[in-house]
Amino acid sequence: MVLSLSRLLSFATLLSPSAQTVWALWPIPASLETGTTALMLSPSFSIDVAVPNIPSDLLQAVAQTQSYLQNDKLGRLVVGRGVSDSYAIQNAEALLSLKLTLMEGSQVGSISSEAVKPLGTRSEEYTLVIPQDGSQATLTANSTLGLYRGLTTFTQLWYYYEGVIYTLLSPIKIVDEPAYPYRGFGLDTARNYFPIADLTRTLEAMSWVKLNMFHWHITDSQSFPLQVSLYPELANNGAYSPQEVYTESDVQYIVSYAAARGIDVLLEIDTPGHTAIIGTSYPDYIACFDASPWATYANEPPAGQLRFAVPEVVNFTASLLSSVAQTLMSKYFSTGGDELNTNCYVNDSATQQQLNQTGMTLNAALDTFTQATHGALIAQGKTPVVWEEMVLNWNLTLSNGTVVMVWISSADAAAVAKKGFRIVQAPSNYFYLDCGAGEWIGDDPTGNSWCDPFKTWSESYTFDPLANLTETQYPLVLGGEQLLWTEQSGPQNLDSIVWPRAASSAEIFWSAKQPGGAPLNVSEALPRLQDIRYRMVQRGVNAIQLQPQWCALRPHACDLNA
Amino acid sequence: MVLSLSRLLSFATLLSPSAQTVWALWPIPASLETGTTALMLSPSFSIDVAVPNIPSDLLQAVAQTQSYLQNDKLGRLVVGRGVSDSYAIQNAEALLSLKLTLMEGSQVGSISSEAVKPLGTRSEEYTLVIPQDGSQATLTANSTLGLYRGLTTFTQLWYYYEGVIYTLLSPIKIVDEPAYPYRGFGLDTARNYFPIADLTRTLEAMSWVKLNMFHWHITDSQSFPLQVSLYPELANNGAYSPQEVYTESDVQYIVSYAAARGIDVLLEIDTPGHTAIIGTSYPDYIACFDASPWATYANEPPAGQLRFAVPEVVNFTASLLSSVAQTLMSKYFSTGGDELNTNCYVNDSATQQQLNQTGMTLNAALDTFTQATHGALIAQGKTPVVWEEMVLNWNLTLSNGTVVMVWISSADAAAVAKKGFRIVQAPSNYFYLDCGAGEWIGDDPTGNSWCDPFKTWSESYTFDPLANLTETQYPLVLGGEQLLWTEQSGPQNLDSIVWPRAASSAEIFWSAKQPGGAPLNVSEALPRLQDIRYRMVQRGVNAIQLQPQWCALRPHACDLNA
Repeated sequence: MVLSLSRLLSFATLLSPSAQTVWALWPIPASLETGTTALMLSPSFSIDVAVPNIPSDLLQAVAQTQSYLQNDKLGRLVVGRGVSDSYAIQNAEALLSLKLTLMEGSQVGSISSEAVKPLGTRSEEYTLVIPQDGSQATLTANSTLGLYRGLTTFTQLWYYYEGVIYTLLSPIKIVDEPAYPYRGFGLDTARNYFPIADLTRTLEAMSWVKLNMFHWHITDSQSFPLQVSLYPELANNGAYSPQEVYTESDVQYIVSYAAARGIDVLLEIDTPGHTAIIGTSYPDYIACFDASPWATYANEPPAGQLRFAVPEVVNFTASLLSSVAQTLMSKYFSTGGDELNTNCYVNDSATQQQLNQTGMTLNAALDTFTQATHGALIAQGKTPVVWEEMVLNWNLTLSNGTVVMVWISSADAAAVAKKGFRIVQAPSNYFYLDCGAGEWIGDDPTGNSWCDPFKTWSESYTFDPLANLTETQYPLVLGGEQLLWTEQSGPQNLDSIVWPRAASSAEIFWSAKQPGGAPLNVSEALPRLQDIRYRMVQRGVNAIQLQPQWCALRPHACDLNA
Repeated sequence: MVLSLSRLLSFATLLSPSAQTVWALWPIPASLETGTTALMLSPSFSIDVAVPNIPSDLLQAVAQTQSYLQNDKLGRLVVGRGVSDSYAIQNAEALLSLKLTLMEGSQVGSISSEAVKPLGTRSEEYTLVIPQDGSQATLTANSTLGLYRGLTTFTQLWYYYEGVIYTLLSPIKIVDEPAYPYRGFGLDTARNYFPIADLTRTLEAMSWVKLNMFHWHITDSQSFPLQVSLYPELANNGAYSPQEVYTESDVQYIVSYAAARGIDVLLEIDTPGHTAIIGTSYPDYIACFDASPWATYANEPPAGQLRFAVPEVVNFTASLLSSVAQTLMSKYFSTGGDELNTNCYVNDSATQQQLNQTGMTLNAALDTFTQATHGALIAQGKTPVVWEEMVLNWNLTLSNGTVVMVWISSADAAAVAKKGFRIVQAPSNYFYLDCGAGEWIGDDPTGNSWCDPFKTWSESYTFDPLANLTETQYPLVLGGEQLLWTEQSGPQNLDSIVWPRAASSAEIFWSAKQPGGAPLNVSEALPRLQDIRYRMVQRGVNAIQLQPQWCALRPHACDLNA
């Protein structure tokens, strides 16, 4: 029996109890045909890279694939964890090799170089064929990045039982490509600091679910952990400690580590709000610095925002952003722009003096500031990324190419689209991983999380990237991301608060419905998400339990109406 | 300046900005006098145990104390993490030794033997005196358990800066004792399994905040990980895997590990509900076993409850409970009793036949069952512990000594007290650590956590153990506990979901107000909780960040009205 899962059909209608269900893949491929024959991985299984001048990151990816295949040792998620597969395994053919080839006419570049191309021009599609008779499996693609995505899929097919690595799904044919070019995860490393090892582990986990954008919110009002050679005092005075700094070489390491895993790093230096800590180095540049009561001037302590009306501050900020951006491979750089609090400037003499002298409004001054900072980035070939307020709350002249992140509410995408900007869907009401952890502000025991409730994987999974948009606006949606703001997070709970939940949007933006197609189905998805969650744990990422293991071993037995 | 903090005074009134605040101790001692003189720990610091026939667990505790003193290396939670203390440190006297003595007339027993005595008879009080001139510090108590509590306090006084271990609070005099005898933490190891190393790490962390009861909800409907020699099939068929079992020697190890840390283990085998998995071994003993739809018969999948009306089941259960209880040192054993679902028995022929034959009501049958199981425990000198429904929802004859856990709502304590039973406060609306993580049942993306919202440490901290009770009922309150039900937890998030939140009730029940006294104060508490949280991380427990580190280093700067 061959089962074809397509985005154009609802999974639920296909998954009758008699069908061989596919619980193995996340995100589910665009096109998938599987059989019911057992196939084992030969002890001498090899990966044959039939690519000229093999790029070193592809070689590394192949070695990593071999490592996952050997070390995952994931027992199948059924009662007995594989004991029922014993008979099938004993009679299975052995797969000796997987051959990697590029389609004729493909240019041979590294995974890393493909990963940082402009969105929409990266080739991620691949075709994976695994015969049932043990003859050579093949993986073909138009780029090494496509091969990388295919290798990732390949590793998710295999289970372990008593020394044997096997699948029950052969023959397999997968023709796959992402629905959206931007599939991200956002992390704030300013509220609390994360050592490099936490970031690399996170990038690895991202790659397992084919996420391709790491949105690194690296600075904020609480700390400035980014070392900038032009402005060393920013980290000297603004990092929590000399140990809690990302040096320039750390950043380069993360960028190359990410790229080799198909991930582009979108760095954000949030401006002009969320900048209080800069006041510890440049007190003249920050208005309402650590002013009290903080709640009058900022959404969080400490208060403090750039004096964007002051020319010296405009020059400093443009110089800061462009000096950092020029060191990065990515074509994208975020200047932030959320939660600008105008109270901060009402009694700020430096700002008011400047506005009086020039006759400018605050809005006009922000426009000048934004054009200067964005202009500096555009001059370097970078595309600016901003939070939605820059488009919806302020009347600014932004370049058409600007990418806008929707975060306050999923309902705001329509207004951004109406203005013609490209959109990254990062709505707090679906995608904020920090929501629901309660109030963290002191002396407020009855306070709740502002974005209650907690976003379960399944709630996130119901997000529709195209909701409220017209068909002509659909192409504006680049994709989206789940994010972790870290007021109540640190290395201690990074894995457990992010995984496997951040896999929800990974599937939405890889596998989501095309216009007119059926939506994703939470009931179909859960057994697959359990599978990738258990696999993550096997690989050393502390992804949380989604249910009692009793449920994980019995797909659908714990559904609401089971 | 000597600052005296007493339960009878509000902390807030004492902590004027000019006062030397005490951010170091959790739970705050009953009586605390501190100075403002720096004192360092001599590199040759020793602990002199002037106790005859030193019990081995006290020797271990002393060695552990030395290890914490040397290895905590906690930088003080201020900007610069201790750099501002350099001058004071340079001029500090060195403390050479701490002398441990028992009060005259004390019996010398082990920590372990004291820790498992009946509640109310354990001696936990101690007096710790640390002079400012470097002369010998003294710790005195009526028992080795009291000395252990004092050692725990001693380790919390010290910070680390550039190779020096120091305090700024000398001279110090602490006279301390707990407000309540029962200070617990409850963990469910049945919904998901936790390896022994997770339990021992949890017990260690419990000891750091002077918790003294580990409520081990070891079995439930989803799995039976407890090896019972009389009934080996229960774990053989009911554990998630042969690796996910607590052997009898594992249980003994946990009991002795706990006792050596001043912790008594209250084991719970929940009956007659929460027992479905027993049906995999004894199908005749379980009604509505795995019946569908599960929601008709149980609060969670799978359905299944003991046929408590059937004499064979009564005998089995009494034998099971007593065969386990007899292996344990504790004087307490919980038979559970929550969430019994009567739908399960309506069409259960075995139950209905028995009721028809005997003319008994379901309530009468439950009374017979409970008297049999409790009788077997009482015959072994154990005190039964039950959930509140056994007292409030059913008309049962329970022995006067029975301890009742209030969980459904804090409001229910009054009704339990009215019936004259002793109370452990475990209210879900304050103390359930799993609340707020969203719906885990499958195919329910809009579902929320039944006990939303998430219980922050500060919300839990506002719990009043004596609320709604009359003065004559006060002595019925033994104490209380925070609990983790593990539908969405496992080893991956155990530390991060429990700590430091479970320290809230540790302070409530050690330091809480006496009748008529001032309540605990969340604003005063937060800097101390930050302190113990950072210390936990230094000791290898992944306690979460409560706030951005910016706030942790600036006590009160992130309070609501700061």
